[in-house]
Amino acid sequence: MTNSSKNSAVLLIHCPDKPGIVVAITEFIFKNDGNITYLDQHVDGERGVFFMRVEWSLDRFAIERGKIAEYFKTLVGTRYDMTFQLHFADEKPRMALFVSKMAHCFYDLLARYECGELDVEIPLVISNHPDLQAATERLGIEYHCIEVNNDNKAEQEARQKALLAEHSIDFIVLARYMQVLSDDFVKDYPQRIINIHHSFLPAFPGGRPYHSAYERGVKIIGATSHYVTAELDAGPIIEQDVVHVSHKDTVDDLVRIGRDLEKIVLARAVRHHVHHDLLVYENRTVVFD
Amino acid sequence: MTNSSKNSAVLLIHCPDKPGIVVAITEFIFKNDGNITYLDQHVDGERGVFFMRVEWSLDRFAIERGKIAEYFKTLVGTRYDMTFQLHFADEKPRMALFVSKMAHCFYDLLARYECGELDVEIPLVISNHPDLQAATERLGIEYHCIEVNNDNKAEQEARQKALLAEHSIDFIVLARYMQVLSDDFVKDYPQRIINIHHSFLPAFPGGRPYHSAYERGVKIIGATSHYVTAELDAGPIIEQDVVHVSHKDTVDDLVRIGRDLEKIVLARAVRHHVHHDLLVYENRTVVFD
Amino acid sequence: MTNSSKNSAVLLIHCPDKPGIVVAITEFIFKNDGNITYLDQHVDGERGVFFMRVEWSLDRFAIERGKIAEYFKTLVGTRYDMTFQLHFADEKPRMALFVSKMAHCFYDLLARYECGELDVEIPLVISNHPDLQAATERLGIEYHCIEVNNDNKAEQEARQKALLAEHSIDFIVLARYMQVLSDDFVKDYPQRIINIHHSFLPAFPGGRPYHSAYERGVKIIGATSHYVTAELDAGPIIEQDVVHVSHKDTVDDLVRIGRDLEKIVLARAVRHHVHHDLLVYENRTVVFD
Amino acid sequence: MTNSSKNSAVLLIHCPDKPGIVVAITEFIFKNDGNITYLDQHVDGERGVFFMRVEWSLDRFAIERGKIAEYFKTLVGTRYDMTFQLHFADEKPRMALFVSKMAHCFYDLLARYECGELDVEIPLVISNHPDLQAATERLGIEYHCIEVNNDNKAEQEARQKALLAEHSIDFIVLARYMQVLSDDFVKDYPQRIINIHHSFLPAFPGGRPYHSAYERGVKIIGATSHYVTAELDAGPIIEQDVVHVSHKDTVDDLVRIGRDLEKIVLARAVRHHVHHDLLVYENRTVVFD
Repeated sequence: MTNSSKNSAVLLIHCPDKPGIVVAITEFIFKNDGNITYLDQHVDGERGVFFMRVEWSLDRFAIERGKIAEYFKTLVGTRYDMTFQLHFADEKPRMALFVSKMAHCFYDLLARYECGELDVEIPLVISNHPDLQAATERLGIEYHCIEVNNDNKAEQEARQKALLAEHSIDFIVLARYMQVLSDDFVKDYPQRIINIHHSFLPAFPGGRPYHSAYERGVKIIGATSHYVTAELDAGPIIEQDVVHVSHKDTVDDLVRIGRDLEKIVLARAVRHHVHHDLLVYENRTVVFD
Repeated sequence: MTNSSKNSAVLLIHCPDKPGIVVAITEFIFKNDGNITYLDQHVDGERGVFFMRVEWSLDRFAIERGKIAEYFKTLVGTRYDMTFQLHFADEKPRMALFVSKMAHCFYDLLARYECGELDVEIPLVISNHPDLQAATERLGIEYHCIEVNNDNKAEQEARQKALLAEHSIDFIVLARYMQVLSDDFVKDYPQRIINIHHSFLPAFPGGRPYHSAYERGVKIIGATSHYVTAELDAGPIIEQDVVHVSHKDTVDDLVRIGRDLEKIVLARAVRHHVHHDLLVYENRTVVFD
Repeated sequence: MTNSSKNSAVLLIHCPDKPGIVVAITEFIFKNDGNITYLDQHVDGERGVFFMRVEWSLDRFAIERGKIAEYFKTLVGTRYDMTFQLHFADEKPRMALFVSKMAHCFYDLLARYECGELDVEIPLVISNHPDLQAATERLGIEYHCIEVNNDNKAEQEARQKALLAEHSIDFIVLARYMQVLSDDFVKDYPQRIINIHHSFLPAFPGGRPYHSAYERGVKIIGATSHYVTAELDAGPIIEQDVVHVSHKDTVDDLVRIGRDLEKIVLARAVRHHVHHDLLVYENRTVVFD
Repeated sequence: MTNSSKNSAVLLIHCPDKPGIVVAITEFIFKNDGNITYLDQHVDGERGVFFMRVEWSLDRFAIERGKIAEYFKTLVGTRYDMTFQLHFADEKPRMALFVSKMAHCFYDLLARYECGELDVEIPLVISNHPDLQAATERLGIEYHCIEVNNDNKAEQEARQKALLAEHSIDFIVLARYMQVLSDDFVKDYPQRIINIHHSFLPAFPGGRPYHSAYERGVKIIGATSHYVTAELDAGPIIEQDVVHVSHKDTVDDLVRIGRDLEKIVLARAVRHHVHHDLLVYENRTVVFD
């Protein structure tokens, strides 16, 4: 069963850790005839923070969708000083892809989309090059080529934002988009811009990480997906993976080998985001799986 | 903090899945002033089974240790038809090692023991060879050489059982012990005998798996730790790991490379068992981590 | 530099191991003004077999392309009883894809093809279902839907073979093609049919391996690419890889997680085949990398 | 067969890449009745450097051991401007262990030594703490406790060097030795001091890498073995490996999980060094395997 066919609600919660939180949350659901289908919690002992992801069926739930957030806040959330998000599994988020010329992540995500593997709508692809227009439009997706340089960044980002608003975009995936977004842009999409960086962060941030990895003579290369924040390549890490390499591998080999890694690490991050499997707290992610 | 210095209780539970289970369990702990420090649950949707591991501090818990099992059963367990185990984190299990001539797992576990890394007592090592007597006794552990063959198996296993009883052994680790235990022996220690098999089960069960792996030309070899059941190498799997190999690797290379894998996969299984992190249900394990 | 732009020759050799083989081969190249750019050899000590892959630039090579095989055979090969293949790096092999309804490997290979990542020509896709016709034809590739069942297998395979001949196909990739090819078909394409099997062979051969993996409770799942031989899922293994799973993963999760594994393991095998990086000897592969 | 029982020679060579090198080297061996049992070469195309490891049986070799280096240099090496090392497989290198209080790598290496897994002699352990004296001496190895601080570093290193000389030590392994060696000390043992660093270098060099990894929220931790050079944690990397972690893992968990990684990554590096499997060129290693 795909996510989007389920009539269920997901709560992502964090709050100061105190006794009784689990009882309060599960009672709220149980007493109102919700059937819990997923529950995972995590306590950060050092910081004294409680995290939870709980999902329950709405089939016989006594509180109507539009009222759940208000009721939960009043009856439970305020008492425990909770920060929470409420999602419904059958609401497909709307995703925009930002791409450039390196097309492997773009093709991989669109293939997953075409197969029905991703529970999203993709109405919009934005690029600073015209190259991928045909491959985008054959799936009925709008493609906008918006060239960005140091001189026109503000106005071009304004055009991008207008398109995002027009298409009611929920989150953005930078699929090897080679431009750095402005701080202002980033601030408008907190924890809603996912980037793939082609190194094992915090090793080799910035440009040309495969060249740096080659120079340093590492025996393993990696890829890192993370939420974009104001500081370059320093946002909360969602997923990482690595692959072994050897002295035989040239920079070109690292680039080639790395492509498969980037595709998978980015796709996993998109999946976690879409399924509401993750929380951010003080620049670290809690990923429920 | 090592496990054994914690004043806490652990419940491992499984039962038919029904609404309200989480509320019932967490209320039992919360209302009696226990502070939950770990909670993980899993629902097997296909079989309709609920699993939980919950750990809580006993520092202010209202029910005394000796009464917790009875109270829990009466107030919660019976109502939900639960099968449960109750453990206390500061009780060190007593472990016996069965070894033969292949010494790498033996040395690895004893080094972890000597470093204080394992929360167990090891009073007893049993072998069918005399080779490791000195390395055992220098740590103040009793060593018994009990040679087993087809003719004397029954009586030698009787001697082994007497030693296990005398030392109040809770569980047995077969650290590359090359003998097959009799069904009767196995039945006396359900889910209390951990074996390491030097293949990625179910590939290559039985003897000489590295030779078989070489013949088949696999590109990856593995190791599997599992609870011993009557059927050889078919018990519930606790941990598995693998390593890449190539056509360059001879059988001797596979044996050598595999040793490091076996050590780690066995040590992880022992840790899960000792920390009460796992449940067995219908020959599959639920491993909380 | 892509493979296909190189003016170089590749020899893949195996023969009984004897002193002097490396000298004889490298002298043949060096004395005729070839510049060796890659050389790797392997000696199977147990079977007494020598394997080599050597690649050299033809820019100043004294022997013309069409004569190299004859000269090498006469001057070196016969003397050492060699079995050898000669390839030229700038000759693109022609590949046919056999597909069914599971489309992830199909999309992945076509995306690599569209990006220019694969040094092949793909003139032909054959399927037993019509589903992927549009996605094939938009790349200018012929698509033939040939439904195969137990009654029409011989005649349908005859149609398939006619298409393969018509398109001068060098090798076939079964990208989750759900039909078993007849022995006769397989014999016509020795070491020229690559399959992806969705398990860590030899564990779980045949149908529904993810279901079997779930039932057995393994903690790791795998994928295996191999050349197809008469015996099902028993041909020489080219590549394998694995991923960790847990008790939380349902069969559907294993299917989903396995897809990424299958894509990569199949793509790696295709790359090795296309780059003439591998040799088969007694049902095992020697993979030079 | 262990390495040390083989009557064979190993040449490790690097030189400017030119046509004819492989012929020259293999002819030298073949014409003098050496039987090549291992040959691997690597060409760094960018830097124009040729690397080779070749091993051959001396059973019928025409040149006596003591003369091989001279003959090779005269007949081949000088002509091609080669830098080379000649080793004999039956000569066991003499290794010193430097340790501190973190004992897991120490125990692991000594267990491998006691099992006969390492082809070395270990006559000497040096520590800045007395803790591991008994565990060292029970294997008949000398233990010297030499406390080093900022004031006495020069004189204590002089004592260390005297012990190394006295025991004819060939190479040193820093098995979680918590002191930084002086530049002068390091210069005396070029490519002969192996360190294990508990991070995936170049991420998290210096102290407390597990704390830094936790703070950064990485999803994978690593370990790196490398030759020690004047610059801290910047020497040529020999081996790296990683393991996945999650938000659930505290710093203490990372320390615990990392121990197994450190043990294996260090042991692999020691094996490569002892088997003369590696070359250093411009701060990168070529590792033949």
